[in-house]
Amino acid sequence: MTNKEKMNGAESLVETLLASDVDICFTNPGTSEMHFVAALDKIPGMRCVLCLFEGGVTGAADGYYRMTGKPASTLLHLAPGLGNGLANLHNAKKAHSGIVNIVGDHATYHLKYDAPLTADIEGVAGPMSHWVKTSPTSETIAADGALAVETARKSPGQIATLILPADTAWGDAHEVVTAKAPADKPRVSAETIKKTAGLLRSGKTMSLLLGGDALTEECLELAGRIVTKTGCGIYIDWFNTRLQRGAGRVQVERIPYVVDNALKVLEAAGDLVLIGAKAPVAFFAYPEKPSALMPENSLCHDFAVVGDDMEAALQALAAELDALASPPANVAEPYTPPLPTGPCSKEGIAAILANMIPENAVVIDESVTTGREFMRATAGAKPHDWLNNRGGSIGFGLPLAVGASIACPDRKVIALEGDGSAMYTIQSLWTLARENLDVTILVFANGTYNILRGELTNVGVQNPGPRAIDMLSINRPDLDWVKMATGMGVDAQKVTTHEALAQAFKAGLAHPGPYLIEVVV
Amino acid sequence: MTNKEKMNGAESLVETLLASDVDICFTNPGTSEMHFVAALDKIPGMRCVLCLFEGGVTGAADGYYRMTGKPASTLLHLAPGLGNGLANLHNAKKAHSGIVNIVGDHATYHLKYDAPLTADIEGVAGPMSHWVKTSPTSETIAADGALAVETARKSPGQIATLILPADTAWGDAHEVVTAKAPADKPRVSAETIKKTAGLLRSGKTMSLLLGGDALTEECLELAGRIVTKTGCGIYIDWFNTRLQRGAGRVQVERIPYVVDNALKVLEAAGDLVLIGAKAPVAFFAYPEKPSALMPENSLCHDFAVVGDDMEAALQALAAELDALASPPANVAEPYTPPLPTGPCSKEGIAAILANMIPENAVVIDESVTTGREFMRATAGAKPHDWLNNRGGSIGFGLPLAVGASIACPDRKVIALEGDGSAMYTIQSLWTLARENLDVTILVFANGTYNILRGELTNVGVQNPGPRAIDMLSINRPDLDWVKMATGMGVDAQKVTTHEALAQAFKAGLAHPGPYLIEVVV
Repeated sequence: MTNKEKMNGAESLVETLLASDVDICFTNPGTSEMHFVAALDKIPGMRCVLCLFEGGVTGAADGYYRMTGKPASTLLHLAPGLGNGLANLHNAKKAHSGIVNIVGDHATYHLKYDAPLTADIEGVAGPMSHWVKTSPTSETIAADGALAVETARKSPGQIATLILPADTAWGDAHEVVTAKAPADKPRVSAETIKKTAGLLRSGKTMSLLLGGDALTEECLELAGRIVTKTGCGIYIDWFNTRLQRGAGRVQVERIPYVVDNALKVLEAAGDLVLIGAKAPVAFFAYPEKPSALMPENSLCHDFAVVGDDMEAALQALAAELDALASPPANVAEPYTPPLPTGPCSKEGIAAILANMIPENAVVIDESVTTGREFMRATAGAKPHDWLNNRGGSIGFGLPLAVGASIACPDRKVIALEGDGSAMYTIQSLWTLARENLDVTILVFANGTYNILRGELTNVGVQNPGPRAIDMLSINRPDLDWVKMATGMGVDAQKVTTHEALAQAFKAGLAHPGPYLIEVVV
Repeated sequence: MTNKEKMNGAESLVETLLASDVDICFTNPGTSEMHFVAALDKIPGMRCVLCLFEGGVTGAADGYYRMTGKPASTLLHLAPGLGNGLANLHNAKKAHSGIVNIVGDHATYHLKYDAPLTADIEGVAGPMSHWVKTSPTSETIAADGALAVETARKSPGQIATLILPADTAWGDAHEVVTAKAPADKPRVSAETIKKTAGLLRSGKTMSLLLGGDALTEECLELAGRIVTKTGCGIYIDWFNTRLQRGAGRVQVERIPYVVDNALKVLEAAGDLVLIGAKAPVAFFAYPEKPSALMPENSLCHDFAVVGDDMEAALQALAAELDALASPPANVAEPYTPPLPTGPCSKEGIAAILANMIPENAVVIDESVTTGREFMRATAGAKPHDWLNNRGGSIGFGLPLAVGASIACPDRKVIALEGDGSAMYTIQSLWTLARENLDVTILVFANGTYNILRGELTNVGVQNPGPRAIDMLSINRPDLDWVKMATGMGVDAQKVTTHEALAQAFKAGLAHPGPYLIEVVV
């Protein structure tokens, strides 16, 4: 805690964030946040990244956390601004990303007048936050800001929403508070390690199901040694926060998205040891299909929950199993398929990705139906990170690319986008251009919410009529991605063949800034 | 109530909506809504309008209600989809627009598995809804749907959010329920009418402050007769739901947005008679400035609250004052200013609007700082409706244009947009093109959140530094509105001079579909 002269609440909050190692703010401010903006102007040290829509703000904070393990701050304008950010906060919450939201509010004494922008901010924040607080005075905001940072930095990460009334921002303040350092991550008990080792040695059919922080190269290598030693299987969920993969790394099988396929895979997997993952469930319920995907005769065994120290846990488990010297199983061989020719197809795009993903790239996958087999096809590509949507609300990819690229300026970010998905937060293209972020975007333009076509069949509509087809089609009129991207300052081109895609992808990867390729599929 | 064979819950809900005169659905569906989509496909009668972002959905429903007085339905995908629609639901709630939201949820039995899209939908809905209900079964959804319509149709209009679990949609149903007809609007009591008439005759300085439904041509004419008879003043709020105005109609003065200006106007207004309006308050609080704008020595007198039968109330008041035969005061003279020349200026744009707004147009005003004097300048334009943002969350204009144009296909809709505002819900351009809606859009491209520049000065930052200026600037890179619009299928051009603007506006008005003009200011 530092005493300062002549500070206002907003300044004490900015100083507190900086003292607590929160030095990025994704912003979309309004009038009630002007004192905070003035404080950002006055106090050096905070990188401010402007987004033209709040979903871009919150999704960027998610991407930043996933790549750094550090919370970013956001700046949002009252209840509606927070509302616009909710969908990507939902996704971030499900990804266990820590975020410090600063939401401006009217001055406390102004609320009773029910001015147009008055609304229940705490109510809007609640469903997508782990922690919500309206700081009552300019003298309390620093302590509350530090508490927000401490909350966001917990393991697993938390969504902390701090509401900053205008008079709390402009009133006098005297404190700067430094957030307490995060506690060590919880350790898995020796008993659980012994018990799990016993299970893995029991001769039963067993598999590891890994998720969350257990998907680093190091954790997967430990898991791969355990596989070699015990002969167990190794799986991950379909969607993961951040998976380190590619040639030389331990390859893991995803539990399929489609329920019937998932059931088949799990039938063979036997009992599951849960390592940062939960018992597998269907993404959606369908008539006559189960929600819980485990076969009746198989069990899930808790080992480590998300937030635990996964590397320590796997290290201990491998040691207990005497597996530390075993070579890791399932190590992906380098595989560089030849570049395909002809009109773009899902398989051909997958081959191009497998061939061209550069070393250490960050791949953000919102490719939905087009990309359903991309991961399988790219298992032997150069080592890279792969990020999925954990919350299922589409429109996360472009914002995530903003945050991931700011987190990792030296790494190429590749965003794989469905056309329907990309439209929700299309404004993020502008921020990519503004910050000149090194992101190559592939938009798969199939002109439809294709996943919903399939789902309509799943609910029993075998021959949808024109109204249903129309409601799931986004090609009347066609979206011109090159025009939209260049209209927001992002270089772009459209391709229809594999040859053109490979050439455009090469150009995009060589281009030190954002580049969008519309891939007609 | 009708009995039907072989219906599911979704079908009974669609039939119930149609039986209850809700025949428009603005949609952005997902998997959990597929049975509802299938029902829309099977049952004729519902016009479905697809939007590529949920803010477009809810804003369109607001525009539809403002122009018809009838609620539309929306179709939204779980908590995040509703979250994306919240900002424009906030605006609609503040505008007293009735809306029936249908929000899909997981099957009830699936919730306990905490699948990725699981979240507290009721919690998200609450702050922006008057009524929220999760319908528990397929046999109850029709009755709940009818209740939602009855709620939305109350006077004033209400936001009704009906949550439709997937199993409620797909389970068997047997009922179609017709919503009860809305009750008559509440009447102002004879006592209040007598008392108010007494006040207006008392010789005190008095003014009428009109809002809500009191801004129809008929109501304003009655108010104008009262002004002539009693010598009172006549005012409206700065932002209004729908104001009928132009040559031949009673002209009213707005209470300015800027606090100091509002204080001056209200100093002269004397006591206020509130007719569908509330006691004037500042949009935001500022240090050292009042929240309540009434001078200390003036009073507000309640006459009619929003939702009351305004025309009956004003008729009775005018009768009580013996004013029915008085000619209305402040009738706007037709005024057609000459078309200006030279580079675009706020004043010149205003003159072009005054000259060219076509008879019976619907003007949606989200022009923010550029348009602050547009209303004053266009008082003598051809008769038209003027719609403002009541909730203050920007991004309402383009969605509102969708809904207003669908409500009034024979009227030209003119959307006046700030560039910053238009970006929030830019996806609405695609829906305008898809439905070929007769909307001319003027985007005022000043490359900045200009209102915030002013607000930064208001909070005491006289010389903002580069970080603050940058955070409020949206011209790095420049947005190219012609590319973005044509990329979504909307014809567009860019103008920099008044001559070009007049010519483009003429072309846009003659064009039977959407047309966007980027006006560099």
